[in-house]
Amino acid sequence: MTYCVAIRTETGLIVASDSRTSAGVDDVSVYSKMHVLPAGPDRCFVLLSAGNLATTQAVTSRIQRDRDDPDAETSIDRLSHLEDVAEYIGAVSTRVQRGPEGANQADFRPKASFILAGQIGEEDHNLFLIYPEGNYIRASEEKPFLQVGETKYGKPILDRIVEPEMSLEMAARCALVSLDASMRSNLSVGPPLELGFYHRNSFHLEPRLRYEDDDAFWRRMQDAWSRNLRQAFMDLPRFEWE
Amino acid sequence: MTYCVAIRTETGLIVASDSRTSAGVDDVSVYSKMHVLPAGPDRCFVLLSAGNLATTQAVTSRIQRDRDDPDAETSIDRLSHLEDVAEYIGAVSTRVQRGPEGANQADFRPKASFILAGQIGEEDHNLFLIYPEGNYIRASEEKPFLQVGETKYGKPILDRIVEPEMSLEMAARCALVSLDASMRSNLSVGPPLELGFYHRNSFHLEPRLRYEDDDAFWRRMQDAWSRNLRQAFMDLPRFEWE
Repeated sequence: MTYCVAIRTETGLIVASDSRTSAGVDDVSVYSKMHVLPAGPDRCFVLLSAGNLATTQAVTSRIQRDRDDPDAETSIDRLSHLEDVAEYIGAVSTRVQRGPEGANQADFRPKASFILAGQIGEEDHNLFLIYPEGNYIRASEEKPFLQVGETKYGKPILDRIVEPEMSLEMAARCALVSLDASMRSNLSVGPPLELGFYHRNSFHLEPRLRYEDDDAFWRRMQDAWSRNLRQAFMDLPRFEWE
Repeated sequence: MTYCVAIRTETGLIVASDSRTSAGVDDVSVYSKMHVLPAGPDRCFVLLSAGNLATTQAVTSRIQRDRDDPDAETSIDRLSHLEDVAEYIGAVSTRVQRGPEGANQADFRPKASFILAGQIGEEDHNLFLIYPEGNYIRASEEKPFLQVGETKYGKPILDRIVEPEMSLEMAARCALVSLDASMRSNLSVGPPLELGFYHRNSFHLEPRLRYEDDDAFWRRMQDAWSRNLRQAFMDLPRFEWE
């Protein structure tokens, strides 16, 4: 399993992901699920992926090959709206998921979901969630975050805290505690964590941070959240007979 | 959907549930999911139910009929271990789920899960989770809570806070904030909430509380939790550049 979350604020985007890939409990590996897609100077695209690893690798590889191929029908360098990039990635993904001719379709589980985060030129920065079927939704004022993978454990804190007016750093902290909740409740979500900041109109993912399990800052964050949550709980009102 | 949670501490049991039942968004009703099963003076059984409403109603009804019938093969009055009660309820549930002869089995979704909370005589109080297949697991020192229904949103706070040494009131507050998380993130989990305290060796569920959405205490609890959580979040460590 996997957990990726992206948050959109007025000043930019936060992308965050775990790095655990498992094909059964005896086949657990570390793979980055945060892909910065190389593109021209007036655009920035980050792809977060959940689901079949072969599919996500084939999709990022196909995107790069279309970019390098002057005869390709389309490429992320030539599209002029982020929505078109989402549509293109959805089409690439469904094509990849069809698999090789003659594959054993009954046992074949090639599904993958993506979050596309980015900006093109003067268009607003935005987030798109691309479903395995290739269709997609965008973030909105009312729903300023998107998630893929094992999403439920980490959703309550996002529902409570995230709002478009918050600073990027606040949004980043919210993504981190959301990841923390998922990691504690689901063994298949695991470190290292990746966290990227996209400042509006910068066209760079900067800073891009990576926290191993024993990273001092990440440890400090986890400890503080654990302590603060416990205090928040201890301070709840008592029942009338207490 | 439904969310029920039960917590076992050294001094007793906490049972909590929402009351929303839906068979599609245009067919939403209020049904209690907390069933106190009438039984002899040396025993107390509470059943929390999730899943098909017809199944859960048929199961509680069958339990009562077996109790009233002196010729019944077994009844909750005559069993001497809580585990046997779990096994009996599992058997009743699977029998009910088979449905009437000639039912359209393909479209038939009669699954239900149960949490059995209670105590018999001098045996320890305990919790059992009874699966739709009729098998069951019990709570343990390491896993002192059980959940059925829409369990994921409310699990992180339980994972963090619940421990066997906590007071019943603390455990009850933990169940309430866990329910609050589920209700906020899933529309199909809804008030009124029910909350029951079982004090070890009391053989009564007392007090048994019910909170409507506008209940003053429940409102105060929700507001405090919201405020405290936000403060817990605001007090997290800053990134080095902040």
